[in-house]
Amino acid sequence: MIQAVENKCSLQGLDPGNIDFQVFFNDHTANDFNTLFASFPSDRRYYAAAAPGSFHGRLFPRASISLAHSSYALQWLSRVPEGVCDRKSAAWNEGRIHYTGSSGDVARAYGDQFEKDMGVFMKARADEIVEGGLMVLIMPGIPDGVCHSELLFGILFNLLGSSLMDLASEGIIDKAEIDEFNLPIYAPSVGEMTKLIEKNGCFSIERIELTNPRSKVDEPIDVHRLIMHLRAGMEAVFTKHFGDAVVDKMFDKALAKCGEISEFLKSSYPESTQLFVVLKRK
Amino acid sequence: MIQAVENKCSLQGLDPGNIDFQVFFNDHTANDFNTLFASFPSDRRYYAAAAPGSFHGRLFPRASISLAHSSYALQWLSRVPEGVCDRKSAAWNEGRIHYTGSSGDVARAYGDQFEKDMGVFMKARADEIVEGGLMVLIMPGIPDGVCHSELLFGILFNLLGSSLMDLASEGIIDKAEIDEFNLPIYAPSVGEMTKLIEKNGCFSIERIELTNPRSKVDEPIDVHRLIMHLRAGMEAVFTKHFGDAVVDKMFDKALAKCGEISEFLKSSYPESTQLFVVLKRK
Repeated sequence: MIQAVENKCSLQGLDPGNIDFQVFFNDHTANDFNTLFASFPSDRRYYAAAAPGSFHGRLFPRASISLAHSSYALQWLSRVPEGVCDRKSAAWNEGRIHYTGSSGDVARAYGDQFEKDMGVFMKARADEIVEGGLMVLIMPGIPDGVCHSELLFGILFNLLGSSLMDLASEGIIDKAEIDEFNLPIYAPSVGEMTKLIEKNGCFSIERIELTNPRSKVDEPIDVHRLIMHLRAGMEAVFTKHFGDAVVDKMFDKALAKCGEISEFLKSSYPESTQLFVVLKRK
Repeated sequence: MIQAVENKCSLQGLDPGNIDFQVFFNDHTANDFNTLFASFPSDRRYYAAAAPGSFHGRLFPRASISLAHSSYALQWLSRVPEGVCDRKSAAWNEGRIHYTGSSGDVARAYGDQFEKDMGVFMKARADEIVEGGLMVLIMPGIPDGVCHSELLFGILFNLLGSSLMDLASEGIIDKAEIDEFNLPIYAPSVGEMTKLIEKNGCFSIERIELTNPRSKVDEPIDVHRLIMHLRAGMEAVFTKHFGDAVVDKMFDKALAKCGEISEFLKSSYPESTQLFVVLKRK
């Protein structure tokens, strides 16, 4: 979701009390906008509007946005990367549902798709944001030099993938169904993201860093809870491909097996997994 | 609904191909915006956004709208006029659901509410529309000097009201329920509307006239079809107060009795019932 504040005057040197703010909320056209509208505080001090559509493309008129913000959305690729579902491709991701722990070809196919999508995203936002306007991005990230096989949500996806493979070996689903399914989700490194921003060329980087989204939480990682969290957010993506019954079984298996990964996550997982980027339109 | 086009450049002297248009669609927060979004043409040449909320109040930042359009929405009052449901008031509208054919006090209560609502509406739009910007309004209207009892939709409402009174005399509903129900719908005359626009003072009247919405239709008025049309649009308002079963019976009665009004409507009803107003922000 992109949330953008549009102001009709320059923010500098003006009493904020005299400025009208308009905030646009973006999501897919089919998302439930009425629930969003019903949740607006009645005493809000901004004019609210919704801009439905994909952020992989233009959403707003030229130079009409002063501040754009996207939170945990850019990890979604616009499509499943080329080749990863194709038995004849070097990037065929056999028996897996994500690039985490896969061959270099698979990870490269994901990275290439992210590069294309970010190119389109950055170009669209560069058209829409005024000179001097800001863009703040938050999304999953990975430290430079850390192997993709250590990606937090990727490790969880692999747990789901291996649960599906268990179901295939029990004859409950066909392995081909797993080969045909890949989650179009990607987490870039700081270096990768920096290159893509520089390639676009329209923004200066005011800040780019990995932060720890759990910094206010004292308890150790609870894998059981992480899986339930993942289920709440992503079950529909799995259900669309595998159907309700299989997805129920997949999550049951994953919960039963989560001990396999919890020790690793508790001991050796890097804490900084959230990419925080502040850009200024040149 | 207000549909507003916002352009970032002046429309004059520029190639329209180089202008970005943003169209805001307004409706109540609870209206189904997703169905609206799904109906947008994919090849549209404007950026679409939704602005949820009541148009009896501000919806947009100051001077941000170039063209505002409201079509068949301003006849809805923001509330049931004061006194019309109050047994102790001179404006008590006993045994009726609308001011058509009621006493002068009832019609005045409706007119007063329309004046208040238009005051709020015009003030809000005057804040939002740029200098030189346009506002186009279409709503039901009535010719100057024509009695409210000849209002087309009012005659239909009276048919529904008398059908409800028939149900009360049959003991199916309590007459008090009818006394407590009044449709908050009003149609002004050209003179009335002109006065309210002049009272606001922020707009010049470029055009104000009554037009015939049926000008392209050759067939005579079909009351049966009009009632079905009314049911499609307004059934929910009745159901909320009277419940499904009563509303079914009310429409059955109204269809059975529609001969009572069809001759009048065919012969003597004025053809121009649509108020068309073009205003320019001073």
